[in-house]
Amino acid sequence: MADKKKKRRRTEPTSDDDDSLPFKNILKPDSSILRSIHKLTASLRSSSAASSSSSSKALTLADLSISSCREVRELPISSVQSEIESLMLKVLHSILDGKGFAFDVPSRAAANQLYVPELDRIVLKDKSSLRPYANVSTVRKATVTARILQLIHELTIKDIHVTKRDLFYTDVKLFQDQSQSDTILDDVSCMIGCTRSSLNVVAAEKGVVVGRLIFSDDGDVIDCTKMGMGGKAIPPNINRVGDMQSDALFILLVEKDAAYMRLAEDRFYNRFPCIIVTAKGQPDVATRLFLRKMKMELKLPVLALVDSDPYGLKILSVYGCGSKNMSYDSANLTTPDIKWLGIRPSDLDKYKIPEQCRLPMTDQDIKTGKDMLEEDFVKKNPKWVEELTLMVKSRQKAEIQALSNFGFQYLSEVYLPLKLQEEDWI
Amino acid sequence: MADKKKKRRRTEPTSDDDDSLPFKNILKPDSSILRSIHKLTASLRSSSAASSSSSSKALTLADLSISSCREVRELPISSVQSEIESLMLKVLHSILDGKGFAFDVPSRAAANQLYVPELDRIVLKDKSSLRPYANVSTVRKATVTARILQLIHELTIKDIHVTKRDLFYTDVKLFQDQSQSDTILDDVSCMIGCTRSSLNVVAAEKGVVVGRLIFSDDGDVIDCTKMGMGGKAIPPNINRVGDMQSDALFILLVEKDAAYMRLAEDRFYNRFPCIIVTAKGQPDVATRLFLRKMKMELKLPVLALVDSDPYGLKILSVYGCGSKNMSYDSANLTTPDIKWLGIRPSDLDKYKIPEQCRLPMTDQDIKTGKDMLEEDFVKKNPKWVEELTLMVKSRQKAEIQALSNFGFQYLSEVYLPLKLQEEDWI
Repeated sequence: MADKKKKRRRTEPTSDDDDSLPFKNILKPDSSILRSIHKLTASLRSSSAASSSSSSKALTLADLSISSCREVRELPISSVQSEIESLMLKVLHSILDGKGFAFDVPSRAAANQLYVPELDRIVLKDKSSLRPYANVSTVRKATVTARILQLIHELTIKDIHVTKRDLFYTDVKLFQDQSQSDTILDDVSCMIGCTRSSLNVVAAEKGVVVGRLIFSDDGDVIDCTKMGMGGKAIPPNINRVGDMQSDALFILLVEKDAAYMRLAEDRFYNRFPCIIVTAKGQPDVATRLFLRKMKMELKLPVLALVDSDPYGLKILSVYGCGSKNMSYDSANLTTPDIKWLGIRPSDLDKYKIPEQCRLPMTDQDIKTGKDMLEEDFVKKNPKWVEELTLMVKSRQKAEIQALSNFGFQYLSEVYLPLKLQEEDWI
Repeated sequence: MADKKKKRRRTEPTSDDDDSLPFKNILKPDSSILRSIHKLTASLRSSSAASSSSSSKALTLADLSISSCREVRELPISSVQSEIESLMLKVLHSILDGKGFAFDVPSRAAANQLYVPELDRIVLKDKSSLRPYANVSTVRKATVTARILQLIHELTIKDIHVTKRDLFYTDVKLFQDQSQSDTILDDVSCMIGCTRSSLNVVAAEKGVVVGRLIFSDDGDVIDCTKMGMGGKAIPPNINRVGDMQSDALFILLVEKDAAYMRLAEDRFYNRFPCIIVTAKGQPDVATRLFLRKMKMELKLPVLALVDSDPYGLKILSVYGCGSKNMSYDSANLTTPDIKWLGIRPSDLDKYKIPEQCRLPMTDQDIKTGKDMLEEDFVKKNPKWVEELTLMVKSRQKAEIQALSNFGFQYLSEVYLPLKLQEEDWI
């Protein structure tokens, strides 16, 4: 019976009264909409093919002759292990030479951060400072650094993954407070020059993925078209993820899980071949790494569906350009060229979202919006500036859920198909 | 290479220095530990077989001759639809008879709640009140009630699922505030006498499951032993979940995701056949429904691993006895007979958790602990009272992660196996 219902829903997605839905009448057949997306995917692939044939590939700091910046890389576990060993050998020699020991630690202060427009992300400059053991002000930090290095070394030997919380609890007496071990952990990433996930320290998982994607998670093959409505939890450790395959035409990045659930239940990815992913709010490290890996390996455009408020744009910017806190790893954590599909401030009038479904922006919202207008990664995209200016001026915001005003399936049956048809992304 | 590493880790789970771990030396071979669990599973199954052969099955309110309570049932979508229709027909007749109309709405106030020790859960008594349209104080509520009934009716026709947030946005002007539509939604559940999930209104998903379980999610077959480390996201709508199969001996209910990740990575369920589930903190409705369904269909004991603090116990009680807010649905949301495996206050000394890994309880913690001691569902279990009294007296709490003090894998390699071996659950 369940099967029958499913069939009914999927073959006749629209009931009669749905035809009165705003804009429903201008929707073209799916095959025509698919052509728009094909064009986008093809243009992305040809441009990446062109750039790789001219052997320049993605821009790097080296290409820009910016040598004064520090970036970390994904390193295999064996390299992390040998890096730690050689680091400690240096310390040993220094002690034997009668010079005592000090760690050379990259600075992660705000003054050492830099937005590089050509790369469209925040990077870390190369200032660093000495952390000597023989100095009252740094002896504690030097000790903690040595202990974290030792613990990470243990992880590399066992090849297991732990959380920051686990790390803290291995020596509460020394670390005193988790913020202390967390900070030094980031220092150690920079010192070794590898990503935090290379250190086998992972964040709690939060994101889910569903749709036209097959990948392997710790050796198990996962088919995300066969994950029911719940989807697949995004694995906490990206280095056990591999073998990505997909016949999707784009990746749909969704801010919140209510919209994700609607699209998963309607199996939107069957009508328009795509991969749907959400971090359920603030982007976490695992979802950011997973999104980047999909984009890079599958060469698919990423279209973002976020709330029409300053935080929706902020979330978009974290996926796209990175957060200041982890700028040393922005190359691995950011996904270039994310398109802002919706809900955009101009959509509110365009799609006739009723007044009562819009919310007034608070003073704090306005302030955040104005601050965002000053950010480099917004400024470089004139259309984003235009939209954000409109938002701040109209003092109105709206959630993705506001579309439910036209019916629960308006999002999947009218709004998104129309956006794709009109190629309405910026 | 990944395969090789995996093998190394799994065939030689303990490195040499691990033998010095506290209590490691008293661990018996796994086969012996498994016998303890087999005993528990068998005793649960024989008692449930005995009770079903005496045709009494699980106790219900009717068995106890408690007729003055209201409980909702899981109803098929077609019944919900016809219930709404007959409800509105009654209203129509009342209007035609010149009596105007009023809804008869069950009260969900605190005074209408009852803890039934024989059932070990909170239930709703049968007090109700009229909500007439022709009354200034209730006209708004009556209107909202009618509108929610109409929207739910629409959902039953389309057979789609939406979130509370979607529901709110369909008529912001009327509902004004999401708390208003949420409250009336619970009223409607009680009025129709069905669960909220029967109304096709679902909560955001939060939980994950991994281990020896196969089930179907919206027609797709999910094998939770092949979900890598990330596990499977628990589906938001339990009525699309079915065909549960398992060769597990128990369900391990874990409070937080750090511990879940440790157990998933170590594939604990391969060594001790089990299903591992977590809601990542506060239990959400989807995870509670899923846990109950597993317990009931698979007839497996549930062992809980929570923090040793009043909130760990509180979480355990929500899984076990329900929350006051949704007492009308406690029969469907609660999982009977959950065993408290750890971390228990007495474990702190027993497992020699160092002082620096314990945290002092705040005044608020102490107050919550003392309040819990007055709760019926704690009082009926003398061993729980004993543990909680010890916690309050010692003024010490500890997280599951505190075990990392002995090594990252102490939880999966020593603590849990030992707990199982000693049959140390209460």
